[in-house]
Amino acid sequence: MIFKKKKRIRFHHCDPAGIVFYPQYLVLCNEIVEDWLAEGIGVALEELIHERRRGLPMRHLEAEFLMPSQHGDELEFQLSVLRLGGSSINLAIEAWGENGLRFFSQQTMIWSDLEGPKPRRIEDDWREKFSRYMKSNPAEETE
Amino acid sequence: MIFKKKKRIRFHHCDPAGIVFYPQYLVLCNEIVEDWLAEGIGVALEELIHERRRGLPMRHLEAEFLMPSQHGDELEFQLSVLRLGGSSINLAIEAWGENGLRFFSQQTMIWSDLEGPKPRRIEDDWREKFSRYMKSNPAEETE
Amino acid sequence: MIFKKKKRIRFHHCDPAGIVFYPQYLVLCNEIVEDWLAEGIGVALEELIHERRRGLPMRHLEAEFLMPSQHGDELEFQLSVLRLGGSSINLAIEAWGENGLRFFSQQTMIWSDLEGPKPRRIEDDWREKFSRYMKSNPAEETE
Amino acid sequence: MIFKKKKRIRFHHCDPAGIVFYPQYLVLCNEIVEDWLAEGIGVALEELIHERRRGLPMRHLEAEFLMPSQHGDELEFQLSVLRLGGSSINLAIEAWGENGLRFFSQQTMIWSDLEGPKPRRIEDDWREKFSRYMKSNPAEETE
Repeated sequence: MIFKKKKRIRFHHCDPAGIVFYPQYLVLCNEIVEDWLAEGIGVALEELIHERRRGLPMRHLEAEFLMPSQHGDELEFQLSVLRLGGSSINLAIEAWGENGLRFFSQQTMIWSDLEGPKPRRIEDDWREKFSRYMKSNPAEETE
Repeated sequence: MIFKKKKRIRFHHCDPAGIVFYPQYLVLCNEIVEDWLAEGIGVALEELIHERRRGLPMRHLEAEFLMPSQHGDELEFQLSVLRLGGSSINLAIEAWGENGLRFFSQQTMIWSDLEGPKPRRIEDDWREKFSRYMKSNPAEETE
Repeated sequence: MIFKKKKRIRFHHCDPAGIVFYPQYLVLCNEIVEDWLAEGIGVALEELIHERRRGLPMRHLEAEFLMPSQHGDELEFQLSVLRLGGSSINLAIEAWGENGLRFFSQQTMIWSDLEGPKPRRIEDDWREKFSRYMKSNPAEETE
Repeated sequence: MIFKKKKRIRFHHCDPAGIVFYPQYLVLCNEIVEDWLAEGIGVALEELIHERRRGLPMRHLEAEFLMPSQHGDELEFQLSVLRLGGSSINLAIEAWGENGLRFFSQQTMIWSDLEGPKPRRIEDDWREKFSRYMKSNPAEETE
């Protein structure tokens, strides 16, 4: 499964060149992860933090800025899981405009106990939920 | 040469976990590139844009978030040039706190003509200025 | 008429105290004005700027922060027109949470020609569209 | 006494019109209040929050945007105390450019106990420190 969500580029995302100021793409990615958790996985980020004492701090980020986006553009964001480590989640986030792929990012986040914070092994019930968004599930492939 | 500059982590850089919201590290990197151009290379970014019609859009970004930073922390940012391509500049930006390296990024920006925008070959006088901040200059090494 | 739109408070709107960082309320107001123009008035802000060469710079702002909002809260924003001057638009923007009014703002923006920029008299067709969102229309009341 | 501090307008403060995006003036005001506390009053905001359990949430804000500011402009911010209530601090913050006053704001913040949060009477030692930045001290004037 791929999680898909449309976002409109706002005036406040754009810089004096009239295009998205690149850190704002990452703010939009942060929104997409929130949306995926709430709508795809079934837990609101605020619930994950406050009730389950889990966080997802960023550990590693790669991003390609392929074509500029402008105020008013509607982008379709697509999120999938590339890899699940013991305590890490590696996501791919793409942003598509009318004329093709605008932005692509790989993000590795750590499944963390807020006390510390320290990494925690992703529990089986969460692992099962996250793995539904893997593009290819190696475990399934070998069966 | 390495360009060094201290920045204080502000209340407005931090998130509900009390640490720097990761896209804000990239806003700080954007400030460091501005500072380097103005103080290290000798051209204000606004002059580069408005008078010389050059921009430096981001093409590729990698970042490692090694240790969290908190409100009030003073970080020393260190910028150097990793590689100069025909029309690309590849920078390394590190942020050091009291207890070690907090953040590391590699950023590839394109030397662009604002009309288009389209990539332009980095002119020799700019190339010479940028190359002073290369950690190792292969051309010099072979001499 | 009152223009109404719901917005969810995101992780990136909140500060280390866990509540909306107050300038982010004004970024949300900026989104609401965009939404009102597009959905209520019938012109996208980017079209207003690029095709009609009109802007709406902020001239005066008042805001009351009555109760804090937290990550995950859904707020209903309500926008109405308080007054239309020769070249100014005075808006009221309220944000309501479950337990009552959280935020209230009055904002005076100038109907401007981007060349200059300089104030322009609000043309009759625009004035008619904006006046539909006036809470009370004194001209109509006296008739 | 008036607290004065220069700030440079950065690329990331500016919008597609090439001028400061107005909520960014308020982010800059937040920095100025931090600078005033640290350099004028003698307490870092992070110390106030973490060690003394005090916060200064915004209650009321007024702002006039008189002239636009552009990327590269250096503004002198001037902060003074207009009024000290039982538990409120009313600040005036001005931003001056080369050609005159660009921005003026009055901000009322509440001296708060983080537990709650709830308003607290400003203790005498803090009141004495804050009152040094009052433009005119009525209590002193009548003596």
